[in-house]
Amino acid sequence: MAAIDLNSDLGESYGAWRMGDDEAMLAIVSSANIACGFHAGDPAGIYRTVKAAAEKGVVVGAHVSYPDRVGFGRRDLDATSEELIADVIYQIGALKGVAAAAGTTVRYVKPHGALYNRIANDAKQGQAVIDGIKAIDSSLALMGLANAPILDLARKSGLAVVAEAFADRAYTPQGQLVSRREAGAVLHDAAKIADRMVQLAREGTLEAIDGSIIKIEAQSICVHGDSPGAVAIAQEIRRRFEADGIDIRSFASNR
Amino acid sequence: MAAIDLNSDLGESYGAWRMGDDEAMLAIVSSANIACGFHAGDPAGIYRTVKAAAEKGVVVGAHVSYPDRVGFGRRDLDATSEELIADVIYQIGALKGVAAAAGTTVRYVKPHGALYNRIANDAKQGQAVIDGIKAIDSSLALMGLANAPILDLARKSGLAVVAEAFADRAYTPQGQLVSRREAGAVLHDAAKIADRMVQLAREGTLEAIDGSIIKIEAQSICVHGDSPGAVAIAQEIRRRFEADGIDIRSFASNR
Amino acid sequence: MAAIDLNSDLGESYGAWRMGDDEAMLAIVSSANIACGFHAGDPAGIYRTVKAAAEKGVVVGAHVSYPDRVGFGRRDLDATSEELIADVIYQIGALKGVAAAAGTTVRYVKPHGALYNRIANDAKQGQAVIDGIKAIDSSLALMGLANAPILDLARKSGLAVVAEAFADRAYTPQGQLVSRREAGAVLHDAAKIADRMVQLAREGTLEAIDGSIIKIEAQSICVHGDSPGAVAIAQEIRRRFEADGIDIRSFASNR
Amino acid sequence: MAAIDLNSDLGESYGAWRMGDDEAMLAIVSSANIACGFHAGDPAGIYRTVKAAAEKGVVVGAHVSYPDRVGFGRRDLDATSEELIADVIYQIGALKGVAAAAGTTVRYVKPHGALYNRIANDAKQGQAVIDGIKAIDSSLALMGLANAPILDLARKSGLAVVAEAFADRAYTPQGQLVSRREAGAVLHDAAKIADRMVQLAREGTLEAIDGSIIKIEAQSICVHGDSPGAVAIAQEIRRRFEADGIDIRSFASNR
Repeated sequence: MAAIDLNSDLGESYGAWRMGDDEAMLAIVSSANIACGFHAGDPAGIYRTVKAAAEKGVVVGAHVSYPDRVGFGRRDLDATSEELIADVIYQIGALKGVAAAAGTTVRYVKPHGALYNRIANDAKQGQAVIDGIKAIDSSLALMGLANAPILDLARKSGLAVVAEAFADRAYTPQGQLVSRREAGAVLHDAAKIADRMVQLAREGTLEAIDGSIIKIEAQSICVHGDSPGAVAIAQEIRRRFEADGIDIRSFASNR
Repeated sequence: MAAIDLNSDLGESYGAWRMGDDEAMLAIVSSANIACGFHAGDPAGIYRTVKAAAEKGVVVGAHVSYPDRVGFGRRDLDATSEELIADVIYQIGALKGVAAAAGTTVRYVKPHGALYNRIANDAKQGQAVIDGIKAIDSSLALMGLANAPILDLARKSGLAVVAEAFADRAYTPQGQLVSRREAGAVLHDAAKIADRMVQLAREGTLEAIDGSIIKIEAQSICVHGDSPGAVAIAQEIRRRFEADGIDIRSFASNR
Repeated sequence: MAAIDLNSDLGESYGAWRMGDDEAMLAIVSSANIACGFHAGDPAGIYRTVKAAAEKGVVVGAHVSYPDRVGFGRRDLDATSEELIADVIYQIGALKGVAAAAGTTVRYVKPHGALYNRIANDAKQGQAVIDGIKAIDSSLALMGLANAPILDLARKSGLAVVAEAFADRAYTPQGQLVSRREAGAVLHDAAKIADRMVQLAREGTLEAIDGSIIKIEAQSICVHGDSPGAVAIAQEIRRRFEADGIDIRSFASNR
Repeated sequence: MAAIDLNSDLGESYGAWRMGDDEAMLAIVSSANIACGFHAGDPAGIYRTVKAAAEKGVVVGAHVSYPDRVGFGRRDLDATSEELIADVIYQIGALKGVAAAAGTTVRYVKPHGALYNRIANDAKQGQAVIDGIKAIDSSLALMGLANAPILDLARKSGLAVVAEAFADRAYTPQGQLVSRREAGAVLHDAAKIADRMVQLAREGTLEAIDGSIIKIEAQSICVHGDSPGAVAIAQEIRRRFEADGIDIRSFASNR
């Protein structure tokens, strides 16, 4: 039986400000990337979301970021390796604490936003993130972009990795994400997206933007919950997976 | 053989800003109250200090605070219990992560500044701090003001407590700290302070500001490192303890 | 012809987080209390809102706050007078800069949240806010709670004041706001609220919670925009004022 | 009579943390680059420093930065033009407010740290800084690196510019700063530095690192105050200028 993980970014409210529909998404995904306070998430809000994830059996990961709340972690920052290592340790530690209080455990780390994009290819910052993870808990897996160099770097460093694909993004014939600046980079048709994800989960392939068939080795699919339209797409993917007998589960759920 | 703990606030630098002489103090104290990022301490600086504490065998505690960096956690804040519980969990978790990376363990929690003063007598915020500690790790001790109601509250809630006295402060005949607004509240004579602390460690007594002898049950003595004068006082206390055969050790060091 | 000001809190988004419907409210109110970055508002978002206010001829005021973004400025903070004076100057200055860039001018100051409530009766913090305003620009008016001591304090200090009433709040027979903890403190019926506000604008009176008629001397009415229901109430007030020939205008608009 | 400006970065303390010796430097320089809260400086501290500058007749400039307090504004940040424009306006506005309260006026803008270095050559971020300055007050001058493209960009945009040289830095034969990564980049000999600065003020020339003589058109010299050694160098420059009859004054002091 085919099985794959669905992950989404949660816990991204901050104080009085709401973001996303955590409750709806926790009914859809098997893994929750929880903001750790550097780009989003205040302690009380993170705690509420992690408790809800624990209640629903959703696996929790640390969504670590550059320290840039006003920029939501979306801006490239020239942090030193020493800073990055410590920032990663601090954020994972904070979330581990919240998870312990909520009766669950952090199982993986997914860098957020600009840090995610940068370390996909930047070996210096990538190694700092890996070193931070290993320093605090070498049993944590690193979730990263399928086909990106960071995954090999993490494997060579002894970390387990979870490769992820993006449900609503087009891919180049080389298996890279089509840049958001190009036409057709973001997909909006829920039925078509669900078709693609079924194929990905069953065959490990996707149709690239030029019509060719490419291989994407992914253990997880990233879905969004930051708009009603995004939630609807995620729901449609889940509905199709359930209808087609594809098991939605975290890499960590059967350990 | 008499034994007592010496504790001090460390890790209070922030980014490019230095505060205190952590290296000097780690050679004096047996317990380090480490800033957790809410009133002071950035991840890289905290990590450096915790590694240095681990190397020197100094026991590490979480110096949790209201979220008020510009006010250095010295301003009373009407946080709700939900906020306080989560703030405490988050900060302890972050420091636990840093401690794990540094090869050591957080053993106690000491609230900082305005939070410390408020919960000494405010049962609502005090209970929230206690609940936060218990939620993340009920084996952590709470360090608090000798003779203050918070210690009983913590004991009744099932937490171990460490009562502390302040080396450089005068006491009322009732065993309370003389307010800093009153003359004579802060002591400056290193030799006299060391005399008092030897008496405290040996007899469990101090001379109050009116000359009467009061009983202070304290397992730890708080010393400061934020000025060269303060470091010198702390060094004199340590020298006298060593000369008089009083063992300086954390409650946690012989577990 | 009767005339009164309608004011609302705007510019309270922060980075990627949205709050309120600034566009809708700018079509309703004559005065916009603009967040200055301490409880809400990032520079780019503030600038957008102030430009929109300038385009619509809505008068701009500085919504100054304690520095407490995670608590949205809703938590009482024991700031010193020196801190408060400087915090007020800094925030007003920042908004004056943004207003100059947007082609408009800051005309008044309305403290936000916990600071608003505290200075209504706390003369020490109240005087600090007044001193801060006078230090930067003594032509700025202070907007405050009708019948509260802060207004007299400001007048005695030489500041112009704008007394405000709250459209959706019940009043005691003594002319105070009924505490939110009491039943009936917040009104929800748009038609009834509009009736009350017409009476306030025409007669300067309101029906208190016990049915007695009280005098409220207010030059401005505070309406909210933080939920679709709140926007609808504000729209109904405006509609009724226009139908009844009550002019909606800022104290500053006819200078 | 030869005349030149001496400028230094001041107001860089933050809350309880001290940085630099503002008092000593205000007795040396003619222009003070005042931190505006984004990399350093809290409102109360900024206010104290600006008041001291006003008392001593030192001209005040806005030392604007990326929003990165923990990194002290020293880390490159990919801010958008919209963000940068608004960040610049907000910071200048805040300092203008503080200056008005202190009885003085902001006369120029000097970007700080990573922003300073980036806009020296990056026309996109440079134009955003220029646009921000012009939006709030086109009479403000931009202080920037002598010989860098940003100065021409600012002039073409209609801003007055102040080119500055660095007292303690070596220059390449092409008139660029020698990178700090290279040997000999930073000078430490106070007498030699003072000799160089006298030559710069009188002849507009400096000896480059290869011994050749280069032309540096600078209206201001940047000196540091962040260590006792740095203060001593600045004092020696001032002493030599006074002894040699070189007038130390801001471009704005004789307007």
